[in-house]
Amino acid sequence: MSTDSAPDLRSIVADHLVDVPDFPAPGVVFKDITPLLQDGPAFRSLITGMADRYRGQVDAVAGIESRGFIFGAALAYELGVGLTLIRKAGKLPRATHSVSYVLEYGTATVEIHQDAFAEGSRVLVVDDVLATGGTAAAAAELVERCGAQVHDIAVILELTFLGGRTALGGREVWALHTI
Amino acid sequence: MSTDSAPDLRSIVADHLVDVPDFPAPGVVFKDITPLLQDGPAFRSLITGMADRYRGQVDAVAGIESRGFIFGAALAYELGVGLTLIRKAGKLPRATHSVSYVLEYGTATVEIHQDAFAEGSRVLVVDDVLATGGTAAAAAELVERCGAQVHDIAVILELTFLGGRTALGGREVWALHTI
Repeated sequence: MSTDSAPDLRSIVADHLVDVPDFPAPGVVFKDITPLLQDGPAFRSLITGMADRYRGQVDAVAGIESRGFIFGAALAYELGVGLTLIRKAGKLPRATHSVSYVLEYGTATVEIHQDAFAEGSRVLVVDDVLATGGTAAAAAELVERCGAQVHDIAVILELTFLGGRTALGGREVWALHTI
Repeated sequence: MSTDSAPDLRSIVADHLVDVPDFPAPGVVFKDITPLLQDGPAFRSLITGMADRYRGQVDAVAGIESRGFIFGAALAYELGVGLTLIRKAGKLPRATHSVSYVLEYGTATVEIHQDAFAEGSRVLVVDDVLATGGTAAAAAELVERCGAQVHDIAVILELTFLGGRTALGGREVWALHTI
């Protein structure tokens, strides 16, 4: 799953992550990626390195709301392909596909425009963090409902102790950094 | 306020906007920008054209949640500068500045990390739409509270009938397309 450039990308992520204890709730340690975004050369190197892995291999990028929009938009721009938004329920104005999934308390729903991709498109799904995998699995299902295929699910950080890959039904994941 | 490339950028926006009647509420015509994002060459031309206006003139980009993240991230990447997030209340994990503003019903609050910029940075504020100007004005105030200066407020679309510029206290706005 690794490339020659993968170790450098891992260092860029690791060097810019900040642990914030007790956010958003007591006992949770939040992994803050904003220092990575604020460092222009680091952000540029990260996106270029990610794009190098997928150049010529994907027809579109799907970014998951809202931090997936950040990495997804820059990647789509660098690759010269379109960006499709996967949004929380009720945000997309035209006809959508919709998938709900279970959270610790209650459920969440994500949506995609039905005309998001040309039939058979190879789609790179992008998010910042892979945690329990519920959102990523729902996003992948949305892509497939549009008649497209998930080429890969790329995340900046994977929280391996939450076992998110088991929710993804064997789909490929590329995590730049894992903890 | 225009550049040689501005008319082309306006056409790219105008050619990809889709009117969605009665969204999100009856009587409202929503301007959907997702077709612009999904068209890879159009999105690339748009971002490159925007970046050409600001190359060497800004030290950072501030993207307003959540569609401002899309244009802001791609612009920051192309310019090689950092991206700072301006988020709704409670989303940023570390110490923030916070500004509240009045909406038609109730108020909204946006926040920024206090360490977002080096002192005196020239910041490009980016959002998708300038409507009443409340969010953009709050975003500009947040940038200034960090000790930075707003170089320009760039939006893809300005709804001129809502008079948003009057809320911005004379700050410069660049709208790629106006209706």
